[in-house]
Amino acid sequence: MEHDHQDSIQRLKTIEGHIRGIQRMLAEDKYCIDVIRQIQAVQSALNKVSAQILDGHLNSCVLGAIQGSDPAERQRVLNEITEVFDAANRN
Amino acid sequence: MEHDHQDSIQRLKTIEGHIRGIQRMLAEDKYCIDVIRQIQAVQSALNKVSAQILDGHLNSCVLGAIQGSDPAERQRVLNEITEVFDAANRN
Amino acid sequence: MEHDHQDSIQRLKTIEGHIRGIQRMLAEDKYCIDVIRQIQAVQSALNKVSAQILDGHLNSCVLGAIQGSDPAERQRVLNEITEVFDAANRN
Amino acid sequence: MEHDHQDSIQRLKTIEGHIRGIQRMLAEDKYCIDVIRQIQAVQSALNKVSAQILDGHLNSCVLGAIQGSDPAERQRVLNEITEVFDAANRN
Repeated sequence: MEHDHQDSIQRLKTIEGHIRGIQRMLAEDKYCIDVIRQIQAVQSALNKVSAQILDGHLNSCVLGAIQGSDPAERQRVLNEITEVFDAANRN
Repeated sequence: MEHDHQDSIQRLKTIEGHIRGIQRMLAEDKYCIDVIRQIQAVQSALNKVSAQILDGHLNSCVLGAIQGSDPAERQRVLNEITEVFDAANRN
Repeated sequence: MEHDHQDSIQRLKTIEGHIRGIQRMLAEDKYCIDVIRQIQAVQSALNKVSAQILDGHLNSCVLGAIQGSDPAERQRVLNEITEVFDAANRN
Repeated sequence: MEHDHQDSIQRLKTIEGHIRGIQRMLAEDKYCIDVIRQIQAVQSALNKVSAQILDGHLNSCVLGAIQGSDPAERQRVLNEITEVFDAANRN
């Protein structure tokens, strides 16, 4: 199923630049706590991308699978949701 | 929609006892790091309960809503999944 | 080293009551997403207790160990901080 | 205080490549759940870098501040630890 991931890709490009900035902070021996805060900011930004991708997934693949006729496929997509939710809790 | 929550309730009873144990550790001035580790163990246990409840929800309410005829209801249940996933990431 | 944990104990008592409330929600078959949100609220409350206990620990045991004369003990308390930080990230 | 951040910088370079890979996955419309799992892997890798930087910080700046003669500075570095721990819990 086709999605429009342009916004997510753009956010990941920004995150990529952010991570390069953190490498520079380390190379310039910037204050460690400020570096850790920047890493935590990157993680918040990644959470937003994850939620955005999950949202697209629910409204396309999951919707399609549940309205489809294959019970095994239906079960599979639902199990995957619980699985990434569980991993999100642990991360 | 009716669920069998017996296992989740049982886990929460165990967690409740665990939290009482942590109160005792603090009252007896046990080593702080051990207390923090016990709180982290409780949080892992709560994550399991959350995942269990989400799993039940997906296989009942969400399935029902998506197979149902109300598009607004369908959208509502899907948005809620993204929302609790987002909160799980932040927690 | 003696701490005043009264506020943390009080918060844990409140959390204990909150968890009993969640058991009731499940027994009464309340809406699953509302139950998950309540579990997430408990986890936020536990995070606050953890941070409070770590704060007390840093200002007592850690301070004492670092100002003390035992390098192995000093190393031990610092390693423990990294360890609970790492676990907090994963939780 | 000078640290050797070579290993952390190297890890961040790897993470940067990982994030570029995730952009490609999105551009090629790869399965969303696999993309989310890759983002979660990046977040685990970032957690390791954070813990590594905190470890270096504790063993240099924090040690120096606590053994130093400025109580306000001592208090500041300890508060920062609690603060990043709290943010780690929420992230």
